[in-house]
Amino acid sequence: MFTLSLIGIGSGNPDHVTVQGIKALNAADLVLIPLKGAEKTELAALRHQICDVHLSNPKTKIAAFDLPVRDTANLSYHHGVNDWHDAIAEVWAKNIAAHPDAQNVAMLIWGDPSLYDSALRIAARLNPAPNVQVVPGITAIQALTAAHAIPFNDIGAPVVVTTGRQLRDHGFPTDADSAVIMLDGQCSFDTLPGEAFDIWWGAYVGMDQQVLRAGRLQDVADDIKAARTEARQRYGWVMDVYLLRRR
Amino acid sequence: MFTLSLIGIGSGNPDHVTVQGIKALNAADLVLIPLKGAEKTELAALRHQICDVHLSNPKTKIAAFDLPVRDTANLSYHHGVNDWHDAIAEVWAKNIAAHPDAQNVAMLIWGDPSLYDSALRIAARLNPAPNVQVVPGITAIQALTAAHAIPFNDIGAPVVVTTGRQLRDHGFPTDADSAVIMLDGQCSFDTLPGEAFDIWWGAYVGMDQQVLRAGRLQDVADDIKAARTEARQRYGWVMDVYLLRRR
Ligand SMILES: C[S@@+](CC[C@H](N)C(=O)[O-])C[C@H]1O[C@@H](n2cnc3c(N)ncnc32)[C@H](O)[C@@H]1O
Ligand SMILES: C[S@@+](CC[C@H](N)C(=O)[O-])C[C@H]1O[C@@H](n2cnc3c(N)ncnc32)[C@H](O)[C@@H]1O
Repeated sequence: MFTLSLIGIGSGNPDHVTVQGIKALNAADLVLIPLKGAEKTELAALRHQICDVHLSNPKTKIAAFDLPVRDTANLSYHHGVNDWHDAIAEVWAKNIAAHPDAQNVAMLIWGDPSLYDSALRIAARLNPAPNVQVVPGITAIQALTAAHAIPFNDIGAPVVVTTGRQLRDHGFPTDADSAVIMLDGQCSFDTLPGEAFDIWWGAYVGMDQQVLRAGRLQDVADDIKAARTEARQRYGWVMDVYLLRRR
Repeated sequence: MFTLSLIGIGSGNPDHVTVQGIKALNAADLVLIPLKGAEKTELAALRHQICDVHLSNPKTKIAAFDLPVRDTANLSYHHGVNDWHDAIAEVWAKNIAAHPDAQNVAMLIWGDPSLYDSALRIAARLNPAPNVQVVPGITAIQALTAAHAIPFNDIGAPVVVTTGRQLRDHGFPTDADSAVIMLDGQCSFDTLPGEAFDIWWGAYVGMDQQVLRAGRLQDVADDIKAARTEARQRYGWVMDVYLLRRR
């Protein structure tokens, strides 16, 4: 039985890495770096940078490999996700099998491995099953609240963490006055009444390209959309996250 | 204008500290360590330990001080909280003023400074107003999901982050099938139908005393209550957090 360490590396700032993450990295025989999507060069570069700076164990090998692309033509979302996770698990398994001596395999996971990430679900498909260890990392949510120096929650109050699709399909949550929106390719805040919310928005949070905007939604929504379009054109990809609070 | 750095140190494991946190600590002229409540010795010890291991700047001073205790006789919750934050801000101000040369003051904040923590609200009361910098830290939520090696969310689904009091007063959220409960002194999961939920529970997560339980709520609720009572008796204090998911 081998150990698979899923190491949260934080959300773009290489200094988000924790001491626990550095120790887990140096305890690994093999570090796998999967490459995916349009942003793949830049996001893989961060993983290589973290290894360059913090990996001091000369016995640790690093192996990068390409991931299958998601079949978006497959209409059922969950079915598509399942096939895609199966396909990724196969590629992981192949790359792990290529290093039969590796007892301790590490993967560097963007943000925290628990949050809107598929690594735990893919790891659960591996056969033989590894002993899975998770090292927590700084999420995009915390990178956002830190960059704006704002609380996540009102005093003693709930917060919903959700996606752009959920916001579009189900509207603003009814259980809470605050919500963090992730995985939103479509500026879904635009479906809300702009006078009723404040927004704290950030793209590439914690990275050199960081862009932040905050204010009453109706006052800043256009500016956010313009900044997002411009940034996406300039860099070829964009990742953004925002906190909404009812006024 | 001085800088006040609120440095998230993670949730009990000294290795949760990030490289960014270590750099911010060493950039400080003064590290303030406020002491409060029953668990104060142990929680302050973690801060001292982090300074012992990671503080290499010989010019950085460390000052510990006692905080006022919350006036629980004051019946209005928000009014009580406001007075209490005012009182704490006064004590912070006094201790900062005692070091007039300190341009860069740091405070080590449990978990992440954005999550159910009053430091940002207290900092906003300081006069003169400091330049507030936030360094994100590993939250108890991530420590919990890492310890159980579980995802925070179902695929593409929302999660509510809330408190024991909210769960008791308003029931399980309607917007989401998953909820993380913090600040719960009363095992508020007991108000839910045990057959309808799974629970992943942890006390002292990430610490040497860590206790974990997971399972169908109706099967493990009694065991959790017993483990919590026993732990609290043994150590004199307890901090716990849990994730509930509708089955
Ligand atoms: C697949 S999820 C992974 C989240 C990650 N596991 C975490 O803990 O933050 C990707 C989403 O996270 C958010 N995100 C991650 N890093 C970000 C960053 N540096 N700036 C803004 N948003 C970010 C965006 O909402 C993006 O769509
Ligand atoms: C005042 S809040 C502070 C939260 C902190 N800022 C964070 O980011 O996790 C304290 C609550 O956090 C949770 N908590 C913090 N550390 C914990 C730990 N090591 N184990 C279990 N729960 C913890 C408990 O629910 C506790 O009531």
